[in-house]
Amino acid sequence: MVSDTRRRIVAATAELFRRQGMTGTGVNQIATAARAPFGSIYHFFPGGKSQLAEEVVRTSGAAYGEHVMAIFAASPDLPTAIETAFATAAHALVAAGYADACPIETIALEVASTNEPLRLATADVFAGWIEEGVRHLPAPELPEPVRRRFVIGFVDCLEGAFVLARAMRSTEPLEAAGRMVLLAARAEIAEHGVAAEQRGR
Amino acid sequence: MVSDTRRRIVAATAELFRRQGMTGTGVNQIATAARAPFGSIYHFFPGGKSQLAEEVVRTSGAAYGEHVMAIFAASPDLPTAIETAFATAAHALVAAGYADACPIETIALEVASTNEPLRLATADVFAGWIEEGVRHLPAPELPEPVRRRFVIGFVDCLEGAFVLARAMRSTEPLEAAGRMVLLAARAEIAEHGVAAEQRGR
Repeated sequence: MVSDTRRRIVAATAELFRRQGMTGTGVNQIATAARAPFGSIYHFFPGGKSQLAEEVVRTSGAAYGEHVMAIFAASPDLPTAIETAFATAAHALVAAGYADACPIETIALEVASTNEPLRLATADVFAGWIEEGVRHLPAPELPEPVRRRFVIGFVDCLEGAFVLARAMRSTEPLEAAGRMVLLAARAEIAEHGVAAEQRGR
Repeated sequence: MVSDTRRRIVAATAELFRRQGMTGTGVNQIATAARAPFGSIYHFFPGGKSQLAEEVVRTSGAAYGEHVMAIFAASPDLPTAIETAFATAAHALVAAGYADACPIETIALEVASTNEPLRLATADVFAGWIEEGVRHLPAPELPEPVRRRFVIGFVDCLEGAFVLARAMRSTEPLEAAGRMVLLAARAEIAEHGVAAEQRGR
């Protein structure tokens, strides 16, 4: 089926981009991985690799954000959400032989200063994560600006830990990042949770 | 001079790798940027781009680590070191139009699952930073395992903030990361600094 071929192309591209980035991924390799004729890629994506890359960044980026939001939604409080998110990330990374982490991180760095439409696509994905994260962070006692700063720091820690973990073939960077986020969460809650209670009096 | 040419090749490669990664950087582009004959690259680096890349990763990685260690050495305490490090990084990133952050981050992600000798080179650089960071962290009251975990989290935060800051063209991710590291530092010092005082009684 036509739509199956398109779906396979997007899924195969997403996996290749996670593992090796966009620059090192050729259209031939995508066609092989997707079990799709070379020409079908240009049939579905007349703009070629750039158009395909933008769709992959936006769809796989959104899916990854929803995955983290599901952890937030299932957690009774912020410390539990943090521990679950970093432990889940570490587990997935080990299971994938340290190849499969954030779907847009490598490409975000590759395009940041070289491809403005794709840079904007990665920026939109990060902005979407931050917006959703601020909305769904299981810490209603924190004021909105604190929630925003905290969510950005959370994403910083996760993304940076992926770089070190993949390079060092170790989950230690994810554990260290999770600990840092947890300590910061406790501190923000201690400071602003108390302030919120006082405001409520 | 011969040694000048070699130095120019390494410096130009390092800058291109920071901005666009290794995969997207061709030997022709390196020769042009270095104002060096194409053949001179293979003269100095018979192993070609891979050999050049390994030297660039190791030398620019070590230099970047020394830069952060200099901030640690010049800071009277850990909170000051953290604030200076993240503010300096933000300032440098803005000055470079968001193009010039960590010298090995993009390449670390590109090679993590595709080029084992270069993956090992990036892992060695990160391990070196962690070792030096543990030694020079201006927080002698923290036990060694806590210092190690903290330094890894510090690097996680900085590296992750570079990804978001470059994509979003904003220093907000660096400010959020710096805040997170600062809160974690205060918490570790409050917990372990007290324990150290009690041990000293």
